[in-house]
Amino acid sequence: MTIESTGKTGHAGAIRLGMVGGGQGAFIGGVHRIASRIDGDYQLVAGALSSDAERSKASGAELGLAPERCYADFDEMAQAEAARADGIEAVAIVTPNHMHFPVAKAFLEAGIHVICDKPLTSTLKDAEALAEVAGDAGRLFVLTHNYSGYPMIRQAREMVQSGTLGAIRLVQMEYVQDWLTEDLESSGQKQASWRTDPARSGAGGCIGDIGTHAYQLGGFVSGLKTDTVLADLTSFVPGRRVDDNVSVLLRFEGGAKGMLWASQVAPGNENGLSLRVYGDKGGLEWHQEQPNHLWYTPFGEPKRLITRGGSGATPAAERVTRVPAGHPEGYLEGFATIYREAAEAIRAARTGASVSKDVQFPGIADGLSGMRFIDACIRSSNEGAVWTKV
Amino acid sequence: MTIESTGKTGHAGAIRLGMVGGGQGAFIGGVHRIASRIDGDYQLVAGALSSDAERSKASGAELGLAPERCYADFDEMAQAEAARADGIEAVAIVTPNHMHFPVAKAFLEAGIHVICDKPLTSTLKDAEALAEVAGDAGRLFVLTHNYSGYPMIRQAREMVQSGTLGAIRLVQMEYVQDWLTEDLESSGQKQASWRTDPARSGAGGCIGDIGTHAYQLGGFVSGLKTDTVLADLTSFVPGRRVDDNVSVLLRFEGGAKGMLWASQVAPGNENGLSLRVYGDKGGLEWHQEQPNHLWYTPFGEPKRLITRGGSGATPAAERVTRVPAGHPEGYLEGFATIYREAAEAIRAARTGASVSKDVQFPGIADGLSGMRFIDACIRSSNEGAVWTKV
Amino acid sequence: MTIESTGKTGHAGAIRLGMVGGGQGAFIGGVHRIASRIDGDYQLVAGALSSDAERSKASGAELGLAPERCYADFDEMAQAEAARADGIEAVAIVTPNHMHFPVAKAFLEAGIHVICDKPLTSTLKDAEALAEVAGDAGRLFVLTHNYSGYPMIRQAREMVQSGTLGAIRLVQMEYVQDWLTEDLESSGQKQASWRTDPARSGAGGCIGDIGTHAYQLGGFVSGLKTDTVLADLTSFVPGRRVDDNVSVLLRFEGGAKGMLWASQVAPGNENGLSLRVYGDKGGLEWHQEQPNHLWYTPFGEPKRLITRGGSGATPAAERVTRVPAGHPEGYLEGFATIYREAAEAIRAARTGASVSKDVQFPGIADGLSGMRFIDACIRSSNEGAVWTKV
Amino acid sequence: MTIESTGKTGHAGAIRLGMVGGGQGAFIGGVHRIASRIDGDYQLVAGALSSDAERSKASGAELGLAPERCYADFDEMAQAEAARADGIEAVAIVTPNHMHFPVAKAFLEAGIHVICDKPLTSTLKDAEALAEVAGDAGRLFVLTHNYSGYPMIRQAREMVQSGTLGAIRLVQMEYVQDWLTEDLESSGQKQASWRTDPARSGAGGCIGDIGTHAYQLGGFVSGLKTDTVLADLTSFVPGRRVDDNVSVLLRFEGGAKGMLWASQVAPGNENGLSLRVYGDKGGLEWHQEQPNHLWYTPFGEPKRLITRGGSGATPAAERVTRVPAGHPEGYLEGFATIYREAAEAIRAARTGASVSKDVQFPGIADGLSGMRFIDACIRSSNEGAVWTKV
Repeated sequence: MTIESTGKTGHAGAIRLGMVGGGQGAFIGGVHRIASRIDGDYQLVAGALSSDAERSKASGAELGLAPERCYADFDEMAQAEAARADGIEAVAIVTPNHMHFPVAKAFLEAGIHVICDKPLTSTLKDAEALAEVAGDAGRLFVLTHNYSGYPMIRQAREMVQSGTLGAIRLVQMEYVQDWLTEDLESSGQKQASWRTDPARSGAGGCIGDIGTHAYQLGGFVSGLKTDTVLADLTSFVPGRRVDDNVSVLLRFEGGAKGMLWASQVAPGNENGLSLRVYGDKGGLEWHQEQPNHLWYTPFGEPKRLITRGGSGATPAAERVTRVPAGHPEGYLEGFATIYREAAEAIRAARTGASVSKDVQFPGIADGLSGMRFIDACIRSSNEGAVWTKV
Repeated sequence: MTIESTGKTGHAGAIRLGMVGGGQGAFIGGVHRIASRIDGDYQLVAGALSSDAERSKASGAELGLAPERCYADFDEMAQAEAARADGIEAVAIVTPNHMHFPVAKAFLEAGIHVICDKPLTSTLKDAEALAEVAGDAGRLFVLTHNYSGYPMIRQAREMVQSGTLGAIRLVQMEYVQDWLTEDLESSGQKQASWRTDPARSGAGGCIGDIGTHAYQLGGFVSGLKTDTVLADLTSFVPGRRVDDNVSVLLRFEGGAKGMLWASQVAPGNENGLSLRVYGDKGGLEWHQEQPNHLWYTPFGEPKRLITRGGSGATPAAERVTRVPAGHPEGYLEGFATIYREAAEAIRAARTGASVSKDVQFPGIADGLSGMRFIDACIRSSNEGAVWTKV
Repeated sequence: MTIESTGKTGHAGAIRLGMVGGGQGAFIGGVHRIASRIDGDYQLVAGALSSDAERSKASGAELGLAPERCYADFDEMAQAEAARADGIEAVAIVTPNHMHFPVAKAFLEAGIHVICDKPLTSTLKDAEALAEVAGDAGRLFVLTHNYSGYPMIRQAREMVQSGTLGAIRLVQMEYVQDWLTEDLESSGQKQASWRTDPARSGAGGCIGDIGTHAYQLGGFVSGLKTDTVLADLTSFVPGRRVDDNVSVLLRFEGGAKGMLWASQVAPGNENGLSLRVYGDKGGLEWHQEQPNHLWYTPFGEPKRLITRGGSGATPAAERVTRVPAGHPEGYLEGFATIYREAAEAIRAARTGASVSKDVQFPGIADGLSGMRFIDACIRSSNEGAVWTKV
Repeated sequence: MTIESTGKTGHAGAIRLGMVGGGQGAFIGGVHRIASRIDGDYQLVAGALSSDAERSKASGAELGLAPERCYADFDEMAQAEAARADGIEAVAIVTPNHMHFPVAKAFLEAGIHVICDKPLTSTLKDAEALAEVAGDAGRLFVLTHNYSGYPMIRQAREMVQSGTLGAIRLVQMEYVQDWLTEDLESSGQKQASWRTDPARSGAGGCIGDIGTHAYQLGGFVSGLKTDTVLADLTSFVPGRRVDDNVSVLLRFEGGAKGMLWASQVAPGNENGLSLRVYGDKGGLEWHQEQPNHLWYTPFGEPKRLITRGGSGATPAAERVTRVPAGHPEGYLEGFATIYREAAEAIRAARTGASVSKDVQFPGIADGLSGMRFIDACIRSSNEGAVWTKV
């Protein structure tokens, strides 16, 4: 267990961070900022927090940014920061989805590491183009599939890899919410507006916003590659322009099967992300709303409750655990772990040192995989819910 | 709340019951017997507990049956009992699935009410034939889809019917077990042997044994009619002759959607039957292993825990509740409720009286519907998991 | 696992049972009747269901009793039944507490086994007198502390006895309800009326009604003998004549400590009976509202969920388990287990055979112990909540 | 909901913070540092992280402190920092308990705000002396009873204050752990060593370390003043010099009653802090290991699950909520809320502005109250567990 990141922290050694998006009234930008602060690895020093110059400055002032480093234009920011001796080393991209591609491209090409919110882009075409840019850039690309930062998810993955569950047969994934049960987007609510607008969010609604999280988690833990999917996408709320409920069957390479249910119209569910993985020797269950608990059943024995920081925790979980068992860590700590892992890689990149293979964060390949999943699900559904190659 | 059935009980008024199957070493026969005793409505007086004459007598003796009413042959039993002045009024059929049809036919044609374990038969053809027989017989046919006897399931149905959830959009069904994770049938275990033998169980394994329970429950509560299904059936255990894992997508008439997962190879699950139903005004969740709890969320308000016998219980739940809130009723009481409901109908049939419309038990139509579901799922899966009309 | 009692059942071998109390409108009588029927060991054939002759006859008729065996007077019943060749072998006493003593005395002295609801009597003096009678009678005295019939409670006791927890240090007991939060007795509600009336219930209210259950369970599982108690009894509801909330500290022989909280005025609690036992090697937790689960933690290892009928169940639990894991057994089955155990002893008494030491039921000693606990708590509280020898 | 503190953050406006204690190998220091960073209100700039000069420098370097602001002596630090124009505005004290008093005194007298870990001191005498110092100092004294920072605890308090529960009758408090089940202190484990050493921890072991947390929480939520307590303290582990298990009965002014159980020897419990509060109109339950859930039952209605950020949350909870419902906040966020509240008060103190009455943090009075509780419990127990005035 480590209370804090063990590398150089404090302001001397902190990584200089910029941010695009996340101005006043935004949500996920604040989450990224807290995540970047928790372990003391970063210092936010520049931002294009809004494309409106006044708003960008005002937002930056609240966060203590120097006025000259509050940009209105991300391109200008990339150039200006790349040119400074004390310029940012990494940028966090927290805009709506359709801006991920141009912003990430600009910073990667300016030689600046990118930490980008998910999904990767709003279209598969953009994703493929970004993958090419990222491949050439020689800079880090970190995608904040934050749920893979939870210690018990790290442990679940490690248990699968070490063969504790035997050969994996089944992966059951869910991400269930209720906040779009009614036509919230017509009320002008900011989150609902852009997330249900195909121009800003991409063709996928629920499938892109939360389905990809569940899909990423299933793949991260099981280590399985998806072969084909069959998806039935529905827009239950009249007038909604994107799907708000998604049922997917999956067939993995090697014969394992899976189901994925994502919904934003199931009253009584807040962020019901859950994962159940079964092999021929045992099973695992995990629920995001109680993230410190991992249920493990060796076949033929009683179920065990493995707790973060507790006696059954494995090294992969311990490595990213901050406080003792019974003192819950939550969403922000899981998110911060992605930032902490990225910090280890960024510091290594300063000197060309190699990064421990224990360091884990989702990257461009995960982003591309997620976009291919969204694309295949939409194609499958459009053709009547038929089996479709990912 | 009623502690006991309110009709005539005790031995004078008790319904004279026979049983086919359920001899020494059997499982479900004992469950039916307890269920028949709990409310004092029945008295077991005859049986063809085994097709082996010695075993039938020995089994009957243990249960206090008169030797002359311990039959080896169900046909003989039907004739003999029909001819007695004090002959049985109803028979419980607790044999393997393939015997349901001939046995039920014999007793119905002898004028005796039938209480039959599920699924209805082992083939759709038998089911259709039995439906015809039952339609002509003028006798009651009760199918023990026992989970619909749980008070909170009755309440869930009532809440849907009264519009509490609004228009139903989603029905998520699960029945997950782990007892067939390994090749138990090769060990000679009696339950595993017949339930994985297509000749005795029918073409469906997991889909017929437990998938139908989940399906029946979803339909019972939601009131929805299934239009088409798409099923992916798998036999994970090498050598197994029937499916042990089932993933189904459902489309209901009127536009609602559903998913059904049934598995017998998911370590850590005992009898994980659960139901979640969501409408545009609220959601419900119920788990068979905690049957006294029903979770209800009116959209936009905190979730409520409704307990059997508690302050939020509706008349439909109260009607079949025996003991106060916080004193759990379980599987046997739920099962007994089917027997109690059947008793009300059987007593009414004695005199031709009408039965209250509150009395609810699954019958031949439910059995036929279940067989059509199994048949459609197997056809769908055999054709590569494609959409198939039920 | 046994589905049904394995001894002689059916009407030939069934034990002839009578009942005192439990007429129309009563509660616990119906529970006893169901409990007596579940395993098929008993047949109810006589009763003094009410002291009102008409009501007794009407109640008996509903239960199928012969009119001549519906008595208005328990003394007359004891004499008459003792004189019949087919007279009752055992009587169930389900009256208010103050009648337990005279009724039990009458039947014991008539040579009839007694199955009596708890607490033993309404005063310690009566209890001591009854203990003397029972000691002389040579008949069985069974006290329905029903919670000790739950399989996981049997297992908990066995685990303690076998040293799995090491030396016991702590026993934490609770029984929490809310039904008397308001002045229900003034409304004329039958249960509330007699249970808050010292003349019928005894000097203890909450302490006698439910505190004794928790106390019995703690002793049954831990095997510890109480040395001294300190009790703070409160009547929160204005005008209430007995305690409705009880806080007790306990010191056991040998140095273990305990706490017991019983309340009838804690909104949100139905029948919150729970037990936690800790030794120097491990801990156990059990909650009556989820009785099929026993949580066991070997110190330094993850917590295990042991389920009734599951892979971690011990022989003591298996012996009293009826249906497989994941099919919940509840309050009525636990209660029925006391009846089943009593049946084994009653049958053995027919022939003088010895009873297996596995057969467990609470008896006169437990009843006396409970009354001494009530008495000590009341004395302690009356003196200002001071340490008091039990 | 606010993602981040709304005041001036970033390095320009950040509060300059120092720390005493918390060097390499310590635990709670790291927690305080993370808590201070989460909302961006503080910047750590100086420390006496260890009384060993080398270790202090090395620990400071890891945290990015300037070498000249890494002190070995807290007195020297207080003087030096008070003399700097950019000196610290507040100091976090995270030493063992016996050092709280001298360190706090030194900084308060140097005009520096104090944020101090709990319990206040190691003796009641020190506590009273410190209270006097604090009263004279005109500087803020913040005690990190961190659990009162949880949003649902804020809501619980607000619900009690607004009369939702009616008149409070019962307050049941628990804080149960298992980490001292064996003689860990003899192994040299750092936390166990000082926490079981009366010279460093104070006369109370379990009562001081965790009992006070439960007591503070009970008082914070219920608003009740304790009149008398009766405590039974035990040291179960042979050789242990302080109590490791505590049973307390409480009588509050006005007639309410309470029980408090704190233990460090109950296997299977990690940080089992829980609170249940009952009034004549309703009840509340909260468990620290699932801190985002608050269970509320209006008497006579179904129980409600109120979630942090969800539809049932009150303004007091919303004020300290960072992320939406279903994304769990944990221990570190709750701790950070104390820091955030302190920051509001510290910023106000810069200008003499008044602080909103919504701002809540435990202070010197709470610390003194906790010490009086510890003292009364020890006196009570030493006299045989008798009623003792607090």
